[in-house]
Amino acid sequence: MALRHYTLDFNLSMAADSASTVPGLLSIFHEQEMTETVHDTNGHGYLATFVGKNGRLVILRVHSHGLVTIDLQCYEEDNIAQLDNLLNALEKKLKVLLNGNITRVKRLPALVRGAKVDRYWPTADGRLIEYDIDRVVYEEDSAYQNIKILHSQQFGNILVLNGDVNLAESDLAYTQAIIGSGKENYAGKEVLILGGGDGGILAEVVKQKPKMITMVEIDQKVIDGCKMHMRKTCGNILDNLKGDCYQILVEDCVPVLRKYVREGRTFDYVINDLTAVPISTEPEEDSTWEFLRLILDLSIKVLHPSGKYFTQGNSVNLTEALSLYEEQLGKLSCPVGFSKEVVCVPSYLELWVFYTIWKK
Amino acid sequence: MALRHYTLDFNLSMAADSASTVPGLLSIFHEQEMTETVHDTNGHGYLATFVGKNGRLVILRVHSHGLVTIDLQCYEEDNIAQLDNLLNALEKKLKVLLNGNITRVKRLPALVRGAKVDRYWPTADGRLIEYDIDRVVYEEDSAYQNIKILHSQQFGNILVLNGDVNLAESDLAYTQAIIGSGKENYAGKEVLILGGGDGGILAEVVKQKPKMITMVEIDQKVIDGCKMHMRKTCGNILDNLKGDCYQILVEDCVPVLRKYVREGRTFDYVINDLTAVPISTEPEEDSTWEFLRLILDLSIKVLHPSGKYFTQGNSVNLTEALSLYEEQLGKLSCPVGFSKEVVCVPSYLELWVFYTIWKK
Repeated sequence: MALRHYTLDFNLSMAADSASTVPGLLSIFHEQEMTETVHDTNGHGYLATFVGKNGRLVILRVHSHGLVTIDLQCYEEDNIAQLDNLLNALEKKLKVLLNGNITRVKRLPALVRGAKVDRYWPTADGRLIEYDIDRVVYEEDSAYQNIKILHSQQFGNILVLNGDVNLAESDLAYTQAIIGSGKENYAGKEVLILGGGDGGILAEVVKQKPKMITMVEIDQKVIDGCKMHMRKTCGNILDNLKGDCYQILVEDCVPVLRKYVREGRTFDYVINDLTAVPISTEPEEDSTWEFLRLILDLSIKVLHPSGKYFTQGNSVNLTEALSLYEEQLGKLSCPVGFSKEVVCVPSYLELWVFYTIWKK
Repeated sequence: MALRHYTLDFNLSMAADSASTVPGLLSIFHEQEMTETVHDTNGHGYLATFVGKNGRLVILRVHSHGLVTIDLQCYEEDNIAQLDNLLNALEKKLKVLLNGNITRVKRLPALVRGAKVDRYWPTADGRLIEYDIDRVVYEEDSAYQNIKILHSQQFGNILVLNGDVNLAESDLAYTQAIIGSGKENYAGKEVLILGGGDGGILAEVVKQKPKMITMVEIDQKVIDGCKMHMRKTCGNILDNLKGDCYQILVEDCVPVLRKYVREGRTFDYVINDLTAVPISTEPEEDSTWEFLRLILDLSIKVLHPSGKYFTQGNSVNLTEALSLYEEQLGKLSCPVGFSKEVVCVPSYLELWVFYTIWKK
C-alpha cells in the first residue's frame, strides 16, 4: 500500500502577513472535516497538522519570509481524482484568498512512497529523478550484487545494479561511446572486455569480425537476466558463452588479468565496462581508488603498445571524482595519455564522460 | 529561506509488528529533544509529529502492511551536515533495531522547497525531475509568456517558457532533428521558420547557404534573452534581424501565414518550432487542437508541392496526444503524408518525437 505525497508551495509577497492569511487557509481544511492540531514552533512560523479520513494527512506551514508549504499524504487506493480536485480547488482558492500577494506557486508531481515498483533512481550527481518505470522484469540477489531489470515505457528494459542505472535497451549511445564512437576498426583485432554482462559491447564488436573477443564477467546472474530481458541490447550473443570469434569467461577479471600479465598476452583493445564501484573476489583494497588503479594498471599491462583502453568515467557534473580518476592515470606503472568525450546516454538523465587511454 | 524536505522510508516484513517497533523509533526522536504529538488516525496506523529547534519538523508514520515513512523538514540554513549525520544515524539505528525485518530502505535526495532558484521542472509526461540548475540568468514576463533562462552545470543555459523546458545549449540534437536529421540540402532553398526565437534553427540552416530564410517569432523578449545568454545555440545570428540570406519578423505567425497564402507564396521547407501550447494574438480558437490545425493548414498551404514541413511533436510517452496530433493531420484541407522519429534531446530528460510532413 503506497503513499502519495503531494506538495503545494506558495511564496507570499512581503505585504501579506500570516495573521491574516492563516484563517483563510485553515477554513479550507476545516471544510474537509479533518482533525486539526496547532503546534508550538518556538517562533518558527505557523504549523498545523490535519488528520482526515482514509489516513489522509495535511501539514500546513506558514514560514517567516512568506513561504507557505502544504503537504498532503494519502494512500494510493484513496480517490486520487478527488484529491487532484481538492488540490486544484485549494490552489484556486488560495490564489483568490491571497489575491495579488502570491508571487510564486509550485506544485510538484506527487512523490509515491513505498510503492511495489520503485520509480526513483537518483543520478550519480545525487539529483532526484522519477523514471517512467512500470514493472520489475527481473530481480535477483547474486553473490556479488542486487540485480534488477526494470521496464521503462520509453527506454525499454533498464539494468540496475545495486541501485545504479547501468544500461537500458535505448542506450546504444553508451555502447558506441565505450567502443570508440565509430572511429575504430575491430576487424582482425584481439579484444578484452572487462565486465559487460549486459552483452551490449560484445554484440556490437562481434559485428566487426575481430580475431577474438574475450569477455570476463563475474556475475552469471547478470548474464542470465540480460540474456532474457535485454535482447535489444545483446541480441542472441549471450545465448552461448562461446562463438566463432568470442568467449565469455564467467570469472573475476582480476586473477584473469594477472594471468594474462604473467603470460605476456596483449590485446589491441581493452574495454573496461565494470560497474562504477567495482566488485571482485580479491581481498579488499585500501579504497575504491586503489582498486580502480589496480584494474587500470593490469589492463595497461596487457594492452598492446599501439592499443587502446576504453572506459566509462562518471557524470560530467562530478568534476572532483573525474579529476581524481585522472590523477590515478598519472600513477600507473606505465605512462599513459588520455582523451575524454561527453556523451548523452538516454536513460542516464545526466551527461556522462568516457575515456580513451593509451600507452605513451 | 528554503525548506529542505528529507524522506526516509522502510518496508518491514510481515513479522514486524508496530506495537514493538514504535517505541524503538520514538526513542530516536526523543534523543533530539523534540516535542512529540501522537495523533489519532482512526485506525490508519501510527502517526506522531515532532517539533524541534530551528523549525525542524519530523513526521513518523507506521502504516499497516509494514510501510514506515519518515519526513524531516528543516531550513536551508540549518546545519545540513548535522542533519545528514542524523539521517545516517537514524537509518543505521533503524536497521539494528528492526534487524532482519527491513525488506527495503528508500532515502531520496532532499526536496528543496521555496528556493530562490527552482530546480524542479517536470517532464511533459508529468514526472518529477530535479535539474542541476544553479542560477537564474534571465527572467522576463513578456506580453505573451514567462521567459526564464536558467543555468545548468551540464546542459549550459536552458530556455524555459511558461515553465516548459524549451531548449538548452546542449541540445544541438533538437535542432538537427527539426531540420531533417542531416538528410536535407538547404542550399538555394526558400525556408520559413515559425517561432524559433532561440535562434538555433536559424544558425544551423544559414550555414547551408539557403536562398532565403524567413523566421517569424512573436516575442522580442525571447530573442533578447537568447541573443545574450544562449550563444552556444544561436551564435551571433540574432545580433541582427536581417542578414545576407535571412530575415527575422518579430510578429505573430498566423497573419503572416495568411498573407503568404493570399499571395500564393511557397517555401521549400516550413519548420514549425512554436511552443507546445502555441501563443498568438489571434482570437482564441475552440481548443489547442483547433489552433494547431489552423497553423498546420496554413503551413501546408504555403508549402511547395515537393516541400517538407518539420515540427517537434511531444514526449514519446504521451501516446494519446501523439495519436490526436496524427488525427489532425488527416483533417487538413490538403492530404498529407508523415513520418516520425524518436530523438534524445539531452536537457529534456525524456525521449521526444519529431514529425516530417509532406503533401500527397
